[in-house]
Amino acid sequence: MRIVVIGGDGYCGWATALHLAARGHDVVIADNFVRRRWDRKLGVSSLTPIRTLATRLRAWERSGGRHIEFARCDVTQYEALKELFGRVRPDAIVHFGQQRSAPFSMIDRDAAALTLVNNTIGNLNVLWAMREVVPEAHLVKLGTMGEYGTPNIDIEEGFINIEHKGRRDRLPFPKQPGSFYHLTKVSDSDHIYFACRAWGVRATDLNQGVVYGLTTEETALAPELINRLDYDGVYGTVLNRFCIEAALGHPLTVYGQGGQTRTFIDIRDTARCIALAIEFPADHGEFRVFNQFTEIFSVLELAHRVERVAQRLGLEPTVAHVENPRVEREAHYYSSTNEHLLSLGLEPRLLDDGTITELIETAGRYAARIDRAQIAARVQWSDRKSHKPQKTPRAASA
Amino acid sequence: MRIVVIGGDGYCGWATALHLAARGHDVVIADNFVRRRWDRKLGVSSLTPIRTLATRLRAWERSGGRHIEFARCDVTQYEALKELFGRVRPDAIVHFGQQRSAPFSMIDRDAAALTLVNNTIGNLNVLWAMREVVPEAHLVKLGTMGEYGTPNIDIEEGFINIEHKGRRDRLPFPKQPGSFYHLTKVSDSDHIYFACRAWGVRATDLNQGVVYGLTTEETALAPELINRLDYDGVYGTVLNRFCIEAALGHPLTVYGQGGQTRTFIDIRDTARCIALAIEFPADHGEFRVFNQFTEIFSVLELAHRVERVAQRLGLEPTVAHVENPRVEREAHYYSSTNEHLLSLGLEPRLLDDGTITELIETAGRYAARIDRAQIAARVQWSDRKSHKPQKTPRAASA
Repeated sequence: MRIVVIGGDGYCGWATALHLAARGHDVVIADNFVRRRWDRKLGVSSLTPIRTLATRLRAWERSGGRHIEFARCDVTQYEALKELFGRVRPDAIVHFGQQRSAPFSMIDRDAAALTLVNNTIGNLNVLWAMREVVPEAHLVKLGTMGEYGTPNIDIEEGFINIEHKGRRDRLPFPKQPGSFYHLTKVSDSDHIYFACRAWGVRATDLNQGVVYGLTTEETALAPELINRLDYDGVYGTVLNRFCIEAALGHPLTVYGQGGQTRTFIDIRDTARCIALAIEFPADHGEFRVFNQFTEIFSVLELAHRVERVAQRLGLEPTVAHVENPRVEREAHYYSSTNEHLLSLGLEPRLLDDGTITELIETAGRYAARIDRAQIAARVQWSDRKSHKPQKTPRAASA
Repeated sequence: MRIVVIGGDGYCGWATALHLAARGHDVVIADNFVRRRWDRKLGVSSLTPIRTLATRLRAWERSGGRHIEFARCDVTQYEALKELFGRVRPDAIVHFGQQRSAPFSMIDRDAAALTLVNNTIGNLNVLWAMREVVPEAHLVKLGTMGEYGTPNIDIEEGFINIEHKGRRDRLPFPKQPGSFYHLTKVSDSDHIYFACRAWGVRATDLNQGVVYGLTTEETALAPELINRLDYDGVYGTVLNRFCIEAALGHPLTVYGQGGQTRTFIDIRDTARCIALAIEFPADHGEFRVFNQFTEIFSVLELAHRVERVAQRLGLEPTVAHVENPRVEREAHYYSSTNEHLLSLGLEPRLLDDGTITELIETAGRYAARIDRAQIAARVQWSDRKSHKPQKTPRAASA
């Protein structure tokens, strides 16, 4: 199939673009490199020395990989996006091209507004360009499990059967996003569902868990194909960050109690899930939601897991509970289903000590590239520390 | 109280600003007159000859009204908004300053994007400016009953108790917005709820029904205070439009079957509801949702109601079923509660024949101002007429 991967220069996008090409698809990476610019602006950089996209693509072809085309494109520029879709006429569009950090979106008003415009206008443009140019294409959009928040009931895949006052309906699962970034993902889902109902767009919304890992079968083919790995307080996500901290002898920084329970997925499974969504597409007018994760862990559980592996590697890790910069529940019920992707054939690659070992060893190899001052989470969700988060709405306010 | 009314030059905003001033509040109208510019751009105008805001405010004071201040301000301009809040230090902020037409938002990609940026960035700016400058203020935000769509269960006020697989939670009521405009209102609600949880903002989200009527106790005080009345295919809402059509001898244009059932409210009650929300404010960190309507009618029911009143006035109205430009269910279950505002003391002013008569007679008086070509709804939700709307998602897509 012809596939446009928007944001194909990023962490998930790069791994996915190569995997799709390896499966014989004709891939066009669309990217505007804004993430690399944001890194420079924030003074952070990938732990691993990532190459320019041009170098990456040459190395991929030298390694025998199927040709991948590159189109410089900013999704917030509507005419350029429409031109791209019209020229490529994709069968599927994979949309990763978003500002993906919750802390970034909480820095200040400008960062929140940038996140909103980049993500929500970008997604709106993708939908309109599909309607106007490629109405038969299938949209595969990356959402996040964080859209759901941490409800006290089991999380379903996008929709829930509700019985209320003697009547029933199947309705969108209630969302409780926890940052301006997460709010954009919820809004994207709502927009896509509307486009499916109103225009007959076919779409798969992938609510992804926290992604971990570095090397995939494809990025392993040449050193220039190495993926990015973020460890800083803005872009570093929890498991990757713990492994890097362990390698450096830095305490594993658990936010608050660490009872925050989240879903996780290996980056190799990210790429495979997206291939499954593309190869078993949604019907016309269908809005499918898949919860894209393989396992559920609490943050503290992961810290102790990394601690044990690090000890076996001869390191002396410690676990530190630092003040939680976020407003979130630190002890809560959590359960979610992920049956749709399993039923399409996903065989989860569960977290094993080998993956943790690889991450710790990679961090050790590139330790000289690390700016320790960037590890701490400095973006605060709220300056009202006395404020009790997640207040339950009163049954009747009056 | 000191109250900033953003969008105070508009239909609901103007009636509300005067009502609040009449109740002894210190009102500051913030507006950038963008709605008047959009009217000119679309080639439409209010049926009634509305005056400039400066003329309106002079007439208000000449009629003995309490001084109302005006501040020219565009909510999408963050620094200006912050400066305004810092100068006025409002106790309450009433936010009407949004692009409020569903058809407008469906014209094309640019109109959808304009609606999104104006509404969602504007709302984001209000929240950040409150956080930074007036964290104690109470936000009273206008949403719409259209956020809920038409679920097959009873609509509650913002939240619903869900029992699922043996567990319970009180969660945001699932939303199914039916246009890009409605999508912005849903996103606004999600943003405000987040700001309440994360920052302790106090907010009341008013999900308003379709507003009808023209004259309020305050606008009746002088001819220059007359409110706007829209009849065109973009801004004209259903009951007002039927009355104007009846006055002109134009068929009452029912979209499709007319079984679309919606909530309604008299503009005099709009102003009173907002006064109630302000005078009985939300607590810190509380996100209250009130369903702001007084009655429920189907579109066809309203057409026949107007038809009967018009006949009594000696007119010869006809009812025409025209092709529905929207993608929406034309026959469906509908039930919603509105108990919060009733419990605060709202005594609904139900639709009576006198209100319909006033609207028809006003339209007759200004008939020469009407451009009949503007009445038809020309904005189509979809060009795929064969597409079946509101497809129910499959239980398992795989």
